[in-house]
Amino acid sequence: MNHPKLPEPMPLAFAEAESAGQRGEVPIGCVIVDQSGNVMAKAGNRTIELKDPTAHAELLAIREAAARLGSERLAGCDLYVTLEPCTMCAAAISFARIRRLYFAAGDEKMGAVEHGPRFFAQATCHHSPDVYGGLGEARGQKLLRDFFQNRR
Amino acid sequence: MNHPKLPEPMPLAFAEAESAGQRGEVPIGCVIVDQSGNVMAKAGNRTIELKDPTAHAELLAIREAAARLGSERLAGCDLYVTLEPCTMCAAAISFARIRRLYFAAGDEKMGAVEHGPRFFAQATCHHSPDVYGGLGEARGQKLLRDFFQNRR
Repeated sequence: MNHPKLPEPMPLAFAEAESAGQRGEVPIGCVIVDQSGNVMAKAGNRTIELKDPTAHAELLAIREAAARLGSERLAGCDLYVTLEPCTMCAAAISFARIRRLYFAAGDEKMGAVEHGPRFFAQATCHHSPDVYGGLGEARGQKLLRDFFQNRR
Repeated sequence: MNHPKLPEPMPLAFAEAESAGQRGEVPIGCVIVDQSGNVMAKAGNRTIELKDPTAHAELLAIREAAARLGSERLAGCDLYVTLEPCTMCAAAISFARIRRLYFAAGDEKMGAVEHGPRFFAQATCHHSPDVYGGLGEARGQKLLRDFFQNRR
């Protein structure tokens, strides 16, 4: 990062993921920073707690950042998430005009960036962020693996 | 419909779409009914008003119905919308376990059911509603055409 005094976004996203797991949610966390590296929003999954199927970490963070910035477009903002976004979240990232997307682990089952619909490559996608996958990949994989093993 | 005394969902969805247009939003409306035909939620687009890129009619209606039912899964519920859902909303419809999806006009530019990612046919889609397109198609097309013509 260019700002050594600012927190690193991906470790913050992992902290959100771990908190989500402790709440009994699937452990996924997300952080949005502006172009200076200031944290605009952070969130973990809350689908169970909020009884809301749309309450994925990315959607909650996008809504929080948009409310904070007073704009439905988060131009210049970057989004960090511990797992490859699903189809719903990939489209929301596009609508929000996120500049760069960083994700840790890929997701064969639900992912929509490198898997499934590969939304950002679709003709119906009208804004694609720059995508950087694999930042903290092993940690992202382990977090989910441990969570699902503990639930069996 | 099986319940002649209950309101028809698609005309209600069109009324929501028209209200959205009068607010300066893209005129799209959505209604969710339970398996007895009772209206669980209705919403029009509010992305501009709420400054929220995720505030599409379908997402707002799904969140409202889930809050009302106290469940992140809307099993047995049907969703009516005046335009083919986008990628974000198609995935949310899947996550919410909507039973049947009725939409009026198709959407070549943004649609994700019959266009683009065709999400319900993807291997990463783990619940697909029964889909009925074209219910009120001409009205849905005209509503959008008039809206965008008036803005030019």
